[in-house]
Amino acid sequence: MKVVVNPNKPEWADIIARPTINQSKIERVVEPILEKVKRGGDKALRKLALEYDHVELDDLFVDKKQLKQAEKHVPQELKDAINLAKENIWKFHEAQKQPELVVETTPGVTCRRRSVAIEKVGLYIPGGTAPLFSTVLMLAIPAKIAGCSEIVISTPTNNLGEVNPIVLYTANLLGIKKVLKLGGAQAIAAMSFGTETVPKVDKIFGPGNQYVTAAKQMVSRDTTAIDMPAGPSEVCVMADKHANPAFIAADLLSQAEHGVDSQVLLVSSSEKLAKKVSEEVDKQVAKLPRKDLATAALKNSTLVVLDNKSDMLDLVNEYAPEHLIIAMEDADEIADKIINAGSVFIGPYTPESAGDYASGTNHTLPTNGWASTTAGVSLDSFVKKITYQTITKKGLINIGGAIEKMAAAEHLDAHKNAVSIRLEEIRDNTDND
Amino acid sequence: MKVVVNPNKPEWADIIARPTINQSKIERVVEPILEKVKRGGDKALRKLALEYDHVELDDLFVDKKQLKQAEKHVPQELKDAINLAKENIWKFHEAQKQPELVVETTPGVTCRRRSVAIEKVGLYIPGGTAPLFSTVLMLAIPAKIAGCSEIVISTPTNNLGEVNPIVLYTANLLGIKKVLKLGGAQAIAAMSFGTETVPKVDKIFGPGNQYVTAAKQMVSRDTTAIDMPAGPSEVCVMADKHANPAFIAADLLSQAEHGVDSQVLLVSSSEKLAKKVSEEVDKQVAKLPRKDLATAALKNSTLVVLDNKSDMLDLVNEYAPEHLIIAMEDADEIADKIINAGSVFIGPYTPESAGDYASGTNHTLPTNGWASTTAGVSLDSFVKKITYQTITKKGLINIGGAIEKMAAAEHLDAHKNAVSIRLEEIRDNTDND
Repeated sequence: MKVVVNPNKPEWADIIARPTINQSKIERVVEPILEKVKRGGDKALRKLALEYDHVELDDLFVDKKQLKQAEKHVPQELKDAINLAKENIWKFHEAQKQPELVVETTPGVTCRRRSVAIEKVGLYIPGGTAPLFSTVLMLAIPAKIAGCSEIVISTPTNNLGEVNPIVLYTANLLGIKKVLKLGGAQAIAAMSFGTETVPKVDKIFGPGNQYVTAAKQMVSRDTTAIDMPAGPSEVCVMADKHANPAFIAADLLSQAEHGVDSQVLLVSSSEKLAKKVSEEVDKQVAKLPRKDLATAALKNSTLVVLDNKSDMLDLVNEYAPEHLIIAMEDADEIADKIINAGSVFIGPYTPESAGDYASGTNHTLPTNGWASTTAGVSLDSFVKKITYQTITKKGLINIGGAIEKMAAAEHLDAHKNAVSIRLEEIRDNTDND
Repeated sequence: MKVVVNPNKPEWADIIARPTINQSKIERVVEPILEKVKRGGDKALRKLALEYDHVELDDLFVDKKQLKQAEKHVPQELKDAINLAKENIWKFHEAQKQPELVVETTPGVTCRRRSVAIEKVGLYIPGGTAPLFSTVLMLAIPAKIAGCSEIVISTPTNNLGEVNPIVLYTANLLGIKKVLKLGGAQAIAAMSFGTETVPKVDKIFGPGNQYVTAAKQMVSRDTTAIDMPAGPSEVCVMADKHANPAFIAADLLSQAEHGVDSQVLLVSSSEKLAKKVSEEVDKQVAKLPRKDLATAALKNSTLVVLDNKSDMLDLVNEYAPEHLIIAMEDADEIADKIINAGSVFIGPYTPESAGDYASGTNHTLPTNGWASTTAGVSLDSFVKKITYQTITKKGLINIGGAIEKMAAAEHLDAHKNAVSIRLEEIRDNTDND
């Protein structure tokens, strides 16, 4: 791996640059798929499954019986592991519930804010090289806690038209009844537009390849909300001379194995450590089954040495990593100074994979620098907060004059009049008393 | 106004359809403006101001002295009104602060979530037909409470290159130091890309015409977050026979005067009331200075009579109005059944204009049906929530096995290895003890 020692600030932009994607090229591929599903519904979906995935789908949904029987194909110790993860994720997301907020801002003027579940949500679960049942946990648990009335999962099948049983087991464990056997942009189109059998959802969640991501962004322009703009996964590790180079190498590789476009970055206060990490990476990568993917991803990646702790913080905050591991002696203090990150892993025994699976935090996180403005998926992502106000006669007398003056100054006379007509009625009725 | 009595469900879609906008046509106009600013910076901004607004701008920012002296041009009673509104909005948004969340999900596994301010925000304040100083309150107050380190306002000038003094007074009242004299798509471009003098912001807020809105959507595709996709303003009123038709007419008109593309909808359980409202609208509209705008907007609008209360609720929830006024005897019960709305105004003395200015709720709200998934602007819009986890040796022993099994089942061996290498080290050190 490339080691850069004390780069000047003007060089930082290059170090933290993400791999670029030709978005419009991908959109040109996705556009006709969206159109086909919009016009052709279920028939178009079957045709696309045959064309792209070489499977003949009779029913677009997984059979109820199959959903229930999936558990037979999952070893007990994996079920126990999934259950443990479910408990932790449930606890942390349940604690995110917010009580109704009630504030009397002026006597007689009561403002409220209440979280209300988004009705219909679609959860995209990638298949491909690995069955990501952990993403079922991460998306379906907050949807269940929020109380979404319709939860649809869409996930690609294997060549035989079958969905991975661990994905089905996890869906069934959470009481999900609708599992669509669709992957790719067509899955996003189906859930966004709705078809004869697929319900049109209000919001679509979940990671996916660049076609899925483009489809989500395209439908979000006019019809359907999405969780966030997703990009290739990334991790940044901050380390000092006390850190364990083998641990750090393992963390960097756990990100790199995701795909050739993944990005890993080490920011170290010790050049010696950076070199040891590089040696450890070489040693560990050789043993990985996904060695080729990881090796390719490491080419996008850099080990940066910065003597100055405040420079380390500046670089990391500018990068705004999806995952940030802090392997430093004063990790807690450093964590408090992080202002841009998706999820932070503090101390030597907190690998990123803990958050990917079972610590309790969500693993659907902002990539590509969006962490500077956007949080990862949480219970908040499955609700919207509606505000309410109730004003009594007394309340309107208290604030009505101010509204009239402000509306008049904004030349919005009908806005003013909606208050004046009420204040007149209150005055008339009081006079008559 | 058109009155529709007990329409069948298949007719509902037409009734609640929003006016459509040719988005790609607008984007073709905006695209070169964004490009010019990206490449030309301040020089391009000056040229565009001359071309579109016919003003010659020396300094792109309002002079500090001018900002401070604006208060001289604002009548005391308007200052008092703005202050009252500020107090209420501040109280309601301050109450939205959330303490750090800390949950020990498993012994030794601590998950946290903390709100961290978005660093740099840009607030767009429309000028045009009215100086919308109320929007300065609605956006700058939560930005201040959140603790954003850089707050930039951008607002168009008049023909003489001057910003409205009430807008400046309100900005100064909230301690805003940077007011850009720019309107339109070029203002959005300046704040999104940054120039020699304009700081690049992380997130852009605020309403605007269709060019501003398109510019916001376009920059949000790769660089800058935005508050929400904005569209023409709209109000829905639910009423029964007990409602005051003059009040309702005034409320409908207060929305209609916003612009020809505004939409108003009355859903009434009483045909008699609907007719009275229609008469009242005709009577009141004649007296309005913005009579032409309001009359045009009313052409998009319908009075719907539905005998059945559950149908009323279904129609309103399907419409997902930005503003919802409930003028019914059982308004509180009805409000509890609303699942899709931006902000709700309960009872006869709660006009929409109260929320537009001074009740305390935010007036930047989701339009065009986005209320089904998206909340209005609040303190949440100016922060992102970062998650943290800290795992002790004991904690990793408790959950490490589950992570290893799940990672292996997802074929992510490096994820598994990041745990295994740590568990081995813990075991080795314990053995040595």
